Amino acid sequence: MTEVVATARRSRITPEREAELYEAVLDLLREVGYDALTMDAVAARTRSSKATLYRQWGGKAELVARAVRHNKPVKVGEIDTGSLKGDLHALTLRADDCEMEQNAALMRGLAMAMHGNPDLLKAFREHLIEPELSEFRHVLQRAVDRGEVRADNPATGFVVHMMIGAFAARTLIDEQPPTQAFLLSYIDAVVLPALGVPTT
Amino acid sequence: MTEVVATARRSRITPEREAELYEAVLDLLREVGYDALTMDAVAARTRSSKATLYRQWGGKAELVARAVRHNKPVKVGEIDTGSLKGDLHALTLRADDCEMEQNAALMRGLAMAMHGNPDLLKAFREHLIEPELSEFRHVLQRAVDRGEVRADNPATGFVVHMMIGAFAARTLIDEQPPTQAFLLSYIDAVVLPALGVPTT
Repeated sequence: MTEVVATARRSRITPEREAELYEAVLDLLREVGYDALTMDAVAARTRSSKATLYRQWGGKAELVARAVRHNKPVKVGEIDTGSLKGDLHALTLRADDCEMEQNAALMRGLAMAMHGNPDLLKAFREHLIEPELSEFRHVLQRAVDRGEVRADNPATGFVVHMMIGAFAARTLIDEQPPTQAFLLSYIDAVVLPALGVPTT
Repeated sequence: MTEVVATARRSRITPEREAELYEAVLDLLREVGYDALTMDAVAARTRSSKATLYRQWGGKAELVARAVRHNKPVKVGEIDTGSLKGDLHALTLRADDCEMEQNAALMRGLAMAMHGNPDLLKAFREHLIEPELSEFRHVLQRAVDRGEVRADNPATGFVVHMMIGAFAARTLIDEQPPTQAFLLSYIDAVVLPALGVPTT
């Protein structure tokens, strides 16, 4: 039932139009931040009616979470290189350093906004964190199936925690953006050894 | 020269009075948050003059960073159990779950405040992050000296990144406070294996 309603709601706009809308939302977010972003501004920028925006997305939080999700250049689930090291490296190489720095700035702003907006946190969990976690579990399950990682290795439950630490601490402690080179060395030094995967 | 000036500045109040002041600052922070905290309120709550506060601490950011630092029940540098696993577990057991949840809430608020207050970020780096990092390096160096960790293990540069991830992701992903049990299992599953230290 939910599926039918969702499809009916989404079928009103084309994928191209949807992508264009998400781009405009991200541009506005970078310009004014979440709190100052209004549905009026999104409607004006994209030449849509506010009624259409609300009908399609329900509200600002959901629209923003979906725009950020859409912005990920490659979905985790589309990566399958045949080894866990290859998969994790490919994930890191999805965005170049410039995109990564822009996205890190955007995500820092959104993390601040989530503090005071439970709606945004809920939408992020539903549209971004949960799908990514599920895709991560899929990548790990393949490694277990290949015999690369033991099914009972306790670190399998902490891969996302390790990666979030790399991003957060790189900014806070090292005062540097999380570059590809940094993330690749972190994956090889921390994530793979914790999972018992040889890195050489 | 800096040392002499600092000592002269601090010698005006007793350690007991200093501790009392820091407690009052933390209480106020929990009540109103960093942005709404004023030196007037600190002066009133602690029956000090604003002039004394400014003379002793220079400003709000430094006072808050020192109060948070003072709040750590045991300094990393005071821990020496004879094994890296023992040291890291002892670090985790410094605060009980209730204190940990209170401190996590306080730190989340301060992390938000740092976003818009470069002064606060600078004071935190100087009075909290740098000293803790240096103590962490000392704990790790002892493990290297004992032969527990190889000096060239690349994960030694990432211990703080791993730990920050545990705190941040626990709140964001798991929607749970970082309890002692969670942190101990994370240390055993992630930090020690990445450092090549057997956990059994």
